[in-house]
Amino acid sequence: MNIVLLSGGSGKRLWPLSNDIRSKQFIKIFKTPEGDYESMVQRVYRQIRKIDGNATVTIATSKTQVSAIHNQLGEHVGISVEPCRRDTFPAIALATAYLHDVQGVREEEAVVVCPVDPYVNEDYFAALKELGQLAEKGNANLVLMGVEPTYPSEKYGYIIPTDKEQVSRVSTFKEKPDVKTAEEYIRCGALWNGGVFAYKLKYVLDKAHELLDFTDYQDLFGKYDTLEKISFDYAVVEKEENIEVMRFAGEWKDLGTWNTLTEAMEEASIGKTILNDQCENVHVINELDVPVLCMGLKDVVVSASPEGILVSDKEQSSYIKPYVDEIDQQIMFAEKSWGSFRVLDVEDESMTIKVTLNAGHQMNYHSHERRDEVWTVISGKGRSIVDGMEQPVQEGDVVTMQAGCRHTLIADTELKVIEVQLGKEISVHDKKKYELEQ
Amino acid sequence: MNIVLLSGGSGKRLWPLSNDIRSKQFIKIFKTPEGDYESMVQRVYRQIRKIDGNATVTIATSKTQVSAIHNQLGEHVGISVEPCRRDTFPAIALATAYLHDVQGVREEEAVVVCPVDPYVNEDYFAALKELGQLAEKGNANLVLMGVEPTYPSEKYGYIIPTDKEQVSRVSTFKEKPDVKTAEEYIRCGALWNGGVFAYKLKYVLDKAHELLDFTDYQDLFGKYDTLEKISFDYAVVEKEENIEVMRFAGEWKDLGTWNTLTEAMEEASIGKTILNDQCENVHVINELDVPVLCMGLKDVVVSASPEGILVSDKEQSSYIKPYVDEIDQQIMFAEKSWGSFRVLDVEDESMTIKVTLNAGHQMNYHSHERRDEVWTVISGKGRSIVDGMEQPVQEGDVVTMQAGCRHTLIADTELKVIEVQLGKEISVHDKKKYELEQ
Repeated sequence: MNIVLLSGGSGKRLWPLSNDIRSKQFIKIFKTPEGDYESMVQRVYRQIRKIDGNATVTIATSKTQVSAIHNQLGEHVGISVEPCRRDTFPAIALATAYLHDVQGVREEEAVVVCPVDPYVNEDYFAALKELGQLAEKGNANLVLMGVEPTYPSEKYGYIIPTDKEQVSRVSTFKEKPDVKTAEEYIRCGALWNGGVFAYKLKYVLDKAHELLDFTDYQDLFGKYDTLEKISFDYAVVEKEENIEVMRFAGEWKDLGTWNTLTEAMEEASIGKTILNDQCENVHVINELDVPVLCMGLKDVVVSASPEGILVSDKEQSSYIKPYVDEIDQQIMFAEKSWGSFRVLDVEDESMTIKVTLNAGHQMNYHSHERRDEVWTVISGKGRSIVDGMEQPVQEGDVVTMQAGCRHTLIADTELKVIEVQLGKEISVHDKKKYELEQ
Repeated sequence: MNIVLLSGGSGKRLWPLSNDIRSKQFIKIFKTPEGDYESMVQRVYRQIRKIDGNATVTIATSKTQVSAIHNQLGEHVGISVEPCRRDTFPAIALATAYLHDVQGVREEEAVVVCPVDPYVNEDYFAALKELGQLAEKGNANLVLMGVEPTYPSEKYGYIIPTDKEQVSRVSTFKEKPDVKTAEEYIRCGALWNGGVFAYKLKYVLDKAHELLDFTDYQDLFGKYDTLEKISFDYAVVEKEENIEVMRFAGEWKDLGTWNTLTEAMEEASIGKTILNDQCENVHVINELDVPVLCMGLKDVVVSASPEGILVSDKEQSSYIKPYVDEIDQQIMFAEKSWGSFRVLDVEDESMTIKVTLNAGHQMNYHSHERRDEVWTVISGKGRSIVDGMEQPVQEGDVVTMQAGCRHTLIADTELKVIEVQLGKEISVHDKKKYELEQ
């Protein structure tokens, strides 16, 4: 099975765990069979691997997510990197060209496309495999998955099949309806459109060449920022006559809000938390090192991270976005390809952060114009390079850097340092990168 | 007026703002006429000063509170320091001896004793003044304040006066009753016992000499730890025949729980907070630098500090103590006589803290056996002394100290440093103090 997972952008609906640089699919909140916690993307990847150990998994995503994906899924997962956001048609065209030109997938092979963030069981991935087989059979150019509705939702688009068979021709598509219209659709056998479909690689590659002017993957990648923003539904699906839908009746949840997300949590709380017996339907996710104590709450979600604290009635949590949009705060925590950082203290003319470098990784070689820095190594072994001079560093070593001097840290083992930044205008934008002459 | 304020011990009922080393009376949550925030002790002190600018205010408290009191009330407030906790009779005896022997208060002058933490208005302090005048008149050995009950509370002891006059003889005292009994008491004109009383200094000094074996204040202070724990009520009040009570009908609140405390807050929130319109009867106190967002909550109190986060139904918040007792966590923030510290990061073999030294103050000259330390000065000017060697320090300077070496910091202006502690067994107990040879 060739499967393309669409990994969407950052979102604020799960603040304070998701923010401008941390997407919800990377938050570790699902208990694994081994008792650890995994993220949405890890869960989906593990489930696919279990159903089809040979599946070629490609994640279509933006540059900003590449390091998070490598951190969570390892270095070997395929990634089709979108140089910028251009909606789903360019993204799927690019991923398809990547499969063909980089991964060597043949034109007659099926490709299954699905979002990275549904909360589903293994039967869902078995259905995806079937969907691919149907596409390969070639009765239709596109085979969609239609989810059997469990209630007349206003949140989804609907697919109207021509009959009630397991696999049917598609009669028409309907936009998100009101509840009454949704009820009518469902009476007529309509299905939710979960954004999942399969096609023979050649089909989308041809469409791409028809609609976009490019020679191969590298060429398309290079001119990606010139492409028009257009959805795959609009550019392809709605114009295609030869199209089928396969019914799926298993569990399928869209975890877009705290309310729906907590429904998928196996435990009432993650992290240092205490809930008294008078709490009812309360979920707590605490990423901080200090405890959260909840008493006598009902239908409430509490989430605490280095970015902030949310305490919300579960239903109200769907309306979070405008409030988070108003919060104007620097990023306090981030995971990067090379490790992570956390802001520990902010003063007018200083900032203290903790930097963790993964073993074998290093910072960019860089300088700042308007701030000095001091590193105190708190654990691990590595090397510092300051203005070309390399020195071994380990726990307890201190490195001071004046503004203007070029510097980097190389981690031989996992390396943790406390970095104190000192200056009048401390900003993430005050950074020049250099090539390291080694 | 000579007034003794009894400042009680640490409490956990207002966790995470109060803890083992930070008592509720020092939390700044009341809006001042100028728009700043003040603590219970600051509010009471300001109110007394307003009613009687010449009042001699003495705070009877333990050693651990002395620096907090000086920080909040200045260096000139009188403090009768209890070397250890020995209940209210020894405390009041010590404070009375302190007034006589140290402050030079004459034996015929009245002393008014009251707890430091009632939430009251200025009429209360006007009543205290009257109480003192009654004591000086000498119709009775003790004059109590009786608070007119507003409901049949089970939380307070009751005073039964002989009649319904403004000032009456006391007929008897009653322990905390159940609601029904309380209703009966109130029908008979009973008053709440708020623990407030006045006497001529000589009266308690004589009682003290009668019950305790000591010569003067210094002697009593020196043998304080040998005294029996006994309450003033038990040792004196309940045995005294010649006793009056004065009625007080003004506002009087006991702010012992989050529920009652939030009733006294003028605003719904303090600190970085966002409450949506669907919140009802919600109070938030946020001491962290990151925002707290509350949505759709009802009758809830949220409090966040470096120690942890409480989210509680207001009524349930009265039952907090056993849950906080279970939390086993190091102190993350403290205010000291010399300034404050906050723990920023804890790892297995390192701890990073931010130390703020007030101008003119310094640390003890000390050493650690099992940890190295690194200071990075982030603001201010001062001097470091390391193994006898004094050096000026300012923003950006780094001082490294090996285990065993003696060190201190002296703040000429307010001085802030990031201190990284490195070692296998970091503990507050690993500290030797030395005299500084200067």
